[in-house]
Amino acid sequence: MSEEFVYPQLELLKPVPSDIDIASNVTPIHIAKIAKHYGILEDEVDQYGKYKAKVQLSIIDRLKDQEDANYVVVTGINPTPLGEGKSTTTIGLCQALGAHLKKTAFACIRQPSQGPTFGIKGGAAGGGYSQVVPMEEFNLHMTGDIHAITAANNLLAAAIDTRILHESTQSDAALFKRLCPEAKDGSRKFAPIMLGRLQKLGITKTNPNDLTQEEISKFVRLDIDPTLITWNRVLDTNDRFLRGITIGQGKEEERFQRKTNFDISVASEIMAVLALSTSLADMRERLGRMVVGPSKAGVPITADDLGVGGALTVLMKDAIMPTLMQTLEGTPVLVHAGPFANIAHGNSSIVADQIALKLAGKDGFVVTEAGFGADIGAEKFFDIKCRSSGLKPNCAVIVATIRALKMHGGGPKVVAGTPLDKAYTGENIPLLSEGVGNLAHHIKNLKKFGVGVVVAINRFSSDTDAEIDLLVSRSLEAGADSAVMTNHWEEGGKGAIDLAKAVQEACLKTQPENFKYLYPLDLSIKEKIETIAKEIYGADGVEYSAEAEKKIQLYTNQGFSNLPICMAKTHLSLSHDPEKKGVPTGFTLPIRDVRASIGAGFIYPLVGSMNTIPGLPTRPCFYEIDIDLKTGKILGLS
Amino acid sequence: MSEEFVYPQLELLKPVPSDIDIASNVTPIHIAKIAKHYGILEDEVDQYGKYKAKVQLSIIDRLKDQEDANYVVVTGINPTPLGEGKSTTTIGLCQALGAHLKKTAFACIRQPSQGPTFGIKGGAAGGGYSQVVPMEEFNLHMTGDIHAITAANNLLAAAIDTRILHESTQSDAALFKRLCPEAKDGSRKFAPIMLGRLQKLGITKTNPNDLTQEEISKFVRLDIDPTLITWNRVLDTNDRFLRGITIGQGKEEERFQRKTNFDISVASEIMAVLALSTSLADMRERLGRMVVGPSKAGVPITADDLGVGGALTVLMKDAIMPTLMQTLEGTPVLVHAGPFANIAHGNSSIVADQIALKLAGKDGFVVTEAGFGADIGAEKFFDIKCRSSGLKPNCAVIVATIRALKMHGGGPKVVAGTPLDKAYTGENIPLLSEGVGNLAHHIKNLKKFGVGVVVAINRFSSDTDAEIDLLVSRSLEAGADSAVMTNHWEEGGKGAIDLAKAVQEACLKTQPENFKYLYPLDLSIKEKIETIAKEIYGADGVEYSAEAEKKIQLYTNQGFSNLPICMAKTHLSLSHDPEKKGVPTGFTLPIRDVRASIGAGFIYPLVGSMNTIPGLPTRPCFYEIDIDLKTGKILGLS
Repeated sequence: MSEEFVYPQLELLKPVPSDIDIASNVTPIHIAKIAKHYGILEDEVDQYGKYKAKVQLSIIDRLKDQEDANYVVVTGINPTPLGEGKSTTTIGLCQALGAHLKKTAFACIRQPSQGPTFGIKGGAAGGGYSQVVPMEEFNLHMTGDIHAITAANNLLAAAIDTRILHESTQSDAALFKRLCPEAKDGSRKFAPIMLGRLQKLGITKTNPNDLTQEEISKFVRLDIDPTLITWNRVLDTNDRFLRGITIGQGKEEERFQRKTNFDISVASEIMAVLALSTSLADMRERLGRMVVGPSKAGVPITADDLGVGGALTVLMKDAIMPTLMQTLEGTPVLVHAGPFANIAHGNSSIVADQIALKLAGKDGFVVTEAGFGADIGAEKFFDIKCRSSGLKPNCAVIVATIRALKMHGGGPKVVAGTPLDKAYTGENIPLLSEGVGNLAHHIKNLKKFGVGVVVAINRFSSDTDAEIDLLVSRSLEAGADSAVMTNHWEEGGKGAIDLAKAVQEACLKTQPENFKYLYPLDLSIKEKIETIAKEIYGADGVEYSAEAEKKIQLYTNQGFSNLPICMAKTHLSLSHDPEKKGVPTGFTLPIRDVRASIGAGFIYPLVGSMNTIPGLPTRPCFYEIDIDLKTGKILGLS
Repeated sequence: MSEEFVYPQLELLKPVPSDIDIASNVTPIHIAKIAKHYGILEDEVDQYGKYKAKVQLSIIDRLKDQEDANYVVVTGINPTPLGEGKSTTTIGLCQALGAHLKKTAFACIRQPSQGPTFGIKGGAAGGGYSQVVPMEEFNLHMTGDIHAITAANNLLAAAIDTRILHESTQSDAALFKRLCPEAKDGSRKFAPIMLGRLQKLGITKTNPNDLTQEEISKFVRLDIDPTLITWNRVLDTNDRFLRGITIGQGKEEERFQRKTNFDISVASEIMAVLALSTSLADMRERLGRMVVGPSKAGVPITADDLGVGGALTVLMKDAIMPTLMQTLEGTPVLVHAGPFANIAHGNSSIVADQIALKLAGKDGFVVTEAGFGADIGAEKFFDIKCRSSGLKPNCAVIVATIRALKMHGGGPKVVAGTPLDKAYTGENIPLLSEGVGNLAHHIKNLKKFGVGVVVAINRFSSDTDAEIDLLVSRSLEAGADSAVMTNHWEEGGKGAIDLAKAVQEACLKTQPENFKYLYPLDLSIKEKIETIAKEIYGADGVEYSAEAEKKIQLYTNQGFSNLPICMAKTHLSLSHDPEKKGVPTGFTLPIRDVRASIGAGFIYPLVGSMNTIPGLPTRPCFYEIDIDLKTGKILGLS
């Protein structure tokens, strides 16, 4: 008894109402109906309320003989702190492809962190008439994935410090007795997870009673070097007071106190693992091999050495399923994983893309978003995410605004929460002409990967035709396949029809086999960093701190030099310096430190100073957020 | 088109398999079917997967003319560290009342903390043939309520320290400009939440531009005393290294660094607020009035003063809905809130009980569990939870085991993870006879509240008939309405039929109007503490530290002396000393410190030394927990 599926008609008001007003005036379609319409079987769906559902990974296997859809990544120029509408464009483009051009088009986007939602930036459901709904469900807990990551990350953290304490206060015999306790009948056995550690130690015995004193000592003592632990605790809160802390100052722990810090959950390795895993088994393996730091002898100590990789997987067992939601026009959205792009790899999950590619099929489209500018989000999309998945994208959409390009041309500083300067609200061809180089640089970079490039000029009401014409011609000069104005914020999918057609064309004419990575994995860590710095950022070279040199040596010795590179760099400039706008030249990229995310599978250089947990402003977004107790409606979310 | 509802038949195996084996061999009934059968309308349910659903508070209003069901609280003697089966009895009793005696019987229980699940104790879904299923859903994230609490708690914490920093680095004018920024047209307005603060300051103006310099200064400066902040950060993880920490050691915050600590999320005030709220509006009000510490002038500063009460409510908007699950025999369970009973008030939510009382109706039963022993969990149930809800319980079930009473009689120490001494595995009348006083003491205490008292002797296979007979007769001597053996762990509801009948009888003969509180609220804080200490614990008196004296004075001056008392005390003894078993006498109760949970609505004395975040043992439960990658089944959860 299949009911007919009707795309909801948007009633477009002017001036465009607030995001929450638009979103809350729409009654979304029941998620079971959305799922059914897009080919998901009843058994493959777990509803979370009426408008969200987890979808199972078994879809990939069920449809394995299905040809993949066209694969499109949405990226951007270096943004102003206000953002240039990348999420909005992703949603608007899918509304156009789906509700207007009648193609099956999945948007694959990241779950937003609660840090920005309650801090400065607000939510991330798109905006205007291009939104994911219900936007409050999307911006709050959604289906709990980030919370699961926080829980898993911090269980591992607790396991590390507690283990150091227990090893320092107990003899080998006492530790062994507790780790492999005697059953009532006097027998002892290893927990299955311990077998991996025994193997790593070269011990092939499977009966605890057979171990020699020396083997017992090797087995029970991880001997983690407390000064070199790289595993931090996390919270999904903008709490700057956790950027530097001392833990272990309780009476019984104070001998083991140490300095450490919290990161925001979306910057955590487990978030990256979730985003990069290709199956439950792959996630289990990655979580187990995550390295928390070296032993005093320099051996990398893993989550599985600590006995906790299985428990982490159990904590993440629901999180590995993407969440199905919908746009304002009833097209499907898969929301999954949410790594920040400046301090992490900035891309939604591989499994969500895989599911969407199968469900959308040969004539369909999967539009996935890479965080921040193309120098970080898109580069990591190609070199980390696509390398991990083996998927070949057809086309990149690069979102540009005239506002941001004027800033790159030397316009006054753009600050969130203060009114825009006049330079941005009237025609200014010289400023735009000066700034368009930033866009051209990104277009040239994207072409290096062998994909089609479409420029989406995200229109603001103050933009003039002359400005848009200039941008179109300069984009084509720089090598873009096409450049089109898009007005989806004001008009929903209807406003993005030209963009949708340009994307269709670019996909048709691009050969996926032309797709290539920027660098091969077998270069040294330094060679890979230098390739990205010179080819993508335009740096003259790279300089390394002593700390960075030491870490590169350590990771190379440990056999980790074959991994791709995930640069932690500001999104506000092509360079490491957020103040350098346009196309900076003549700079040397400073590498302050290097970390390794072995479970996620990348080396992680810190470029300049990067905060790994944001702060709150004097008046955070939360001042406006409340519930109308009469109607139950959420107020003030944006 | 109603399908017939059939209670699942249990196939009882001997020996009883492991909890996870029993649980995972049952296919639960779809939660939509459970909801429908127990009278919940389709619109009142939000599914979370196939076997969990949030139920809406509007049920209470829809059924307001319905008479309430019988209201039964399950409590216990002072337990061994192994626990004496209170949750298991709650579930078994409901299985008996529902599936065997064909009454509508809701179990209302707490959501377990992930701390114990991955630490020492394991999960809390009951055990044997009396369990909530799916037990892994119950023991893991469930529907995310505890995660919402963690997020809300820590957003408030971040707001406190960041506000102190901003106030210290900005002029009055700068703060005001940011808190009430100019719009494009030059106008300014207060956020609605600011009006409460203005009112508290006696400022009746509503236009920011009308404030005098002095009023601006009063408005923008909360002037929180950083040395007296009582709001801690929380995690739902057993992380002992967070018992004492220094925060704010990042470069930009180090002038404001201070010592603090994390508590476990289930001990947080927001957890207590969730458990004690009677509606969404009530929760909004409580969250807003939570006090984080005094200003330097001694004025209590609240979440609403910080502008965050609305955002906290939005974070908690789904958490306020109880989660519907089911027992192994298909009877309904409402899981909601999870405060620990030793360091918090230890009772599941009021709204879950209210919903269940309406749904079960006049002839039905609602069985709710109060944490740990009757000296803490049940006393707080009566004096805090029932006082807040206005509900009158009919009957208390007190769970006792022969094992624990032998321990109270002087038996050897019982330690988790090590085999039980012989004293516990064979008949030992003298030891039991000596220890039964602990049970008698609790029976007498419970009778003071005017409720029926039924003793449930939770049977172990090693218990002898002579031992059980002794317990029955001594229980009746002490004033219990009845005392029955129950065998639900081995037999499910069938094993608890006698208990169910005894509960029915006790409810029939108890007059709810006989129910009374232990103390009136208008006693002084000290008088209330002393009443509980003497009447319930059997102390000779109470002694207060200088810190406690100071706080009692502070809270009395601030007008908070009219609140009930939530004692934070060990559950392992009637006294403050976990080593004192049986019925300790001749002791003076030491009050180390006193705190105030103004949003939850209680004063919170710390008795002796209490850890507010547990630690992990050398071999935590997580060693056994994993996923079978072939079947997807969870392994090792207990």
